[in-house]
Amino acid sequence: MVRLRRRVPPRAKIPGVLWTPDGAVGARPLILMGHGGGRHKSAPGMVARARRYAAECGFAVAAVDAPAHGERPRSAEHDRIIAEMRTHAQTGKDATSVVAAFHALLADQAVLEWRAVLAALQELDHVGAGPVGFWGVSMGCALGVPFIASEPRVRAVVLGLSGVPTSAEAAARITVPLEFLVQWDDERVPREASLGLFDAFASPEKTLHANPGKHAEVPAFELDSSLRFFARHLG
Amino acid sequence: MVRLRRRVPPRAKIPGVLWTPDGAVGARPLILMGHGGGRHKSAPGMVARARRYAAECGFAVAAVDAPAHGERPRSAEHDRIIAEMRTHAQTGKDATSVVAAFHALLADQAVLEWRAVLAALQELDHVGAGPVGFWGVSMGCALGVPFIASEPRVRAVVLGLSGVPTSAEAAARITVPLEFLVQWDDERVPREASLGLFDAFASPEKTLHANPGKHAEVPAFELDSSLRFFARHLG
Repeated sequence: MVRLRRRVPPRAKIPGVLWTPDGAVGARPLILMGHGGGRHKSAPGMVARARRYAAECGFAVAAVDAPAHGERPRSAEHDRIIAEMRTHAQTGKDATSVVAAFHALLADQAVLEWRAVLAALQELDHVGAGPVGFWGVSMGCALGVPFIASEPRVRAVVLGLSGVPTSAEAAARITVPLEFLVQWDDERVPREASLGLFDAFASPEKTLHANPGKHAEVPAFELDSSLRFFARHLG
Repeated sequence: MVRLRRRVPPRAKIPGVLWTPDGAVGARPLILMGHGGGRHKSAPGMVARARRYAAECGFAVAAVDAPAHGERPRSAEHDRIIAEMRTHAQTGKDATSVVAAFHALLADQAVLEWRAVLAALQELDHVGAGPVGFWGVSMGCALGVPFIASEPRVRAVVLGLSGVPTSAEAAARITVPLEFLVQWDDERVPREASLGLFDAFASPEKTLHANPGKHAEVPAFELDSSLRFFARHLG
């Protein structure tokens, strides 16, 4: 059903993956996906999600490696802050501020890149200028929020596993329908920071989905829910 | 598609409504619904919900008038506390404790009645002893929690719009899958009381769905969500 690993046009110079249904012809809704920190464009969870959005909804789905992730080069500054995050994780220190600093370091570049990727994708005959959705949790949320806030083509978003520090100001400029995931026992994002970010979004339609468990333990049925959410708003 | 207003067997002596799909034969999942305070078994929202559960999932759906509601008689004690709630509402006083007292007054009787209704319904050929779900928000939640806690036949529940005071102790004995609705700007149930009740449930699978708006402003898409939740667990 799904064509894999069709690269975005080379002029974008950002390694990416585009999934479309087999034999796709003409414009269709497009979901951009932002991967988590330390992951990349074709991590197993990304591939499984993209395949379902493409196969069950007929959507185009695209992911690129975030700056300093996957096939992308890292600067000395990236290496320094990644080492600092690792030390925090190993020693059990609160990493909130260093993670927020890392996301702030990547955000401006990520926003420009997603804009370029979106423009390039919408020129493809079997993607076209249909409605656009964004899915991203954890780092994918932190980097996605400033992108969505500045991008009127994005019409519906699934975000979460991220808190106030990085993105509350940009969240207040987002007004599109939102599904926001919170892990009730998140060891990385304090509950209050999650609820604070949910509060910050200006979207008249926003739903918080909270489930028990740690950061990486989002239940499988939330993928079903996101699929129906996108189908309802973009389909 | 749906047969309306088939009464439960008269021996139960509780006015109720049973919805089943047209031509229903044989056992099927059953959803018991608990209406809100001041409402009754066939309030418009109850009927619309029951029709969808029956028509789209093939379920049997039943509702009865809670004690002191709908066609049921009220005692002097009921009248006194209802008048007190009304005064609180009119004067803008916090009604949490008087509402909790009203629910406590009704809960024991409601639990016994739902048990009798469930037993009577499961004897019907076109309902049978299939899996049972419970839907109830606001007073339907407050009265439903002690019922569910004491009723092993109930396998999946949608609750919400209610807080800690009435039912936290019983909630801690509930372990079945739960979808729990919170209105983020609920003028009747403080947010902390809602989150506290969600925390109290012992269910390994529980999801909190929070939406902006007041007590009565639950968005329509939550009905879709509850339908899929019941279909997943009972279907």
